[in-house]
Amino acid sequence: MLVLSSPSGAGKTTISRALLQGDKNLTMSVSVTTRPMRPGEVDGKDYHFIDEAVFQAMVERRELLEHAHVFNRHYGTPRGPVEQALALGTDMLFDIDWQGTQQLKQNEVTGGDLVSVFILPPSIDVLEDRLRRRAQDPDEVVRSRMAKAADEMSHYSEYSYVIVNDDVERSVAEVRAILTAERLRRPRQIGLHEFVESLKPNA
Amino acid sequence: MLVLSSPSGAGKTTISRALLQGDKNLTMSVSVTTRPMRPGEVDGKDYHFIDEAVFQAMVERRELLEHAHVFNRHYGTPRGPVEQALALGTDMLFDIDWQGTQQLKQNEVTGGDLVSVFILPPSIDVLEDRLRRRAQDPDEVVRSRMAKAADEMSHYSEYSYVIVNDDVERSVAEVRAILTAERLRRPRQIGLHEFVESLKPNA
Repeated sequence: MLVLSSPSGAGKTTISRALLQGDKNLTMSVSVTTRPMRPGEVDGKDYHFIDEAVFQAMVERRELLEHAHVFNRHYGTPRGPVEQALALGTDMLFDIDWQGTQQLKQNEVTGGDLVSVFILPPSIDVLEDRLRRRAQDPDEVVRSRMAKAADEMSHYSEYSYVIVNDDVERSVAEVRAILTAERLRRPRQIGLHEFVESLKPNA
Repeated sequence: MLVLSSPSGAGKTTISRALLQGDKNLTMSVSVTTRPMRPGEVDGKDYHFIDEAVFQAMVERRELLEHAHVFNRHYGTPRGPVEQALALGTDMLFDIDWQGTQQLKQNEVTGGDLVSVFILPPSIDVLEDRLRRRAQDPDEVVRSRMAKAADEMSHYSEYSYVIVNDDVERSVAEVRAILTAERLRRPRQIGLHEFVESLKPNA
């Protein structure tokens, strides 16, 4: 369970895509959202786009591991794919904000076994530039997004790892290193005790 | 502070050498020992070879961060180079056994901030083969080394990471990933708070 969080404009989506391409053992958790689809987005890949009624029904049926309310829209993580990944022993990548991360940590399905990574932009100028180019929105909207980014960034200290994304390739390599290292942690290695027993003379 | 431990014959020395070659920010802690130099070993590189009187004097002057007694010989880690590495912010690699690791964890100089990795051989046959070829010793000595290896391996559960060394190149890449990841841990990143403040609007 690998959680990547960052303010919009820090490059998280680019990093996530590169990670998924290079790692067959890693699948993406696709969130549900009530916000409208943007040009270029694909339903079921970027998000599952659903309406308010369906969202509320999922919340009531406890089909979401976490959900958040941002800019008057709802976002949530479906429970099914996470349970499947846990059962299969594959890793799952979550692109969620600090609120979602906190809820996921406390959720009984994950058992709190999350690896959390916060991605920061290299400077405030780069952040503003990315938010401006991407959304093609008026100054007022950009300012509001900057304020939201600042709010998100104030939660970096709740994460285990922090990456400053001044070079996408290096950042991807760094997340890969974190994944490799976390898989080598002793408590995550299934069957290790039996293996060590087999290494002893007269085993 | 990266500690690599393993039974003799698991390939730790080969892995350590490859790590040091590829990483200028990493220096090796050279232990002192009272055992005789073996053919091919270099004083000051493989070990500092010292006599019993010098060893006891170092212990009394508290110049060793940890020391152990194995096969009737003494081994120890000099304090000076570790303090220097900590002051310079460089990483230090320790090739020590489980006893040394426990002492280092409790030492006030390191503050317990160790990354500990245990390296296992891929099978008992490979382990025995390596111990036999290397030492060119009679069966009795090999059996005694196997027993020592089994004793060392029984302490794998005191380590944060475990690597099964069935391919040296992959094992080196895995230790490198652990180093990269551990350097990205939030509490180890100096100046991070000030950097995040600089990313906020009107900072």
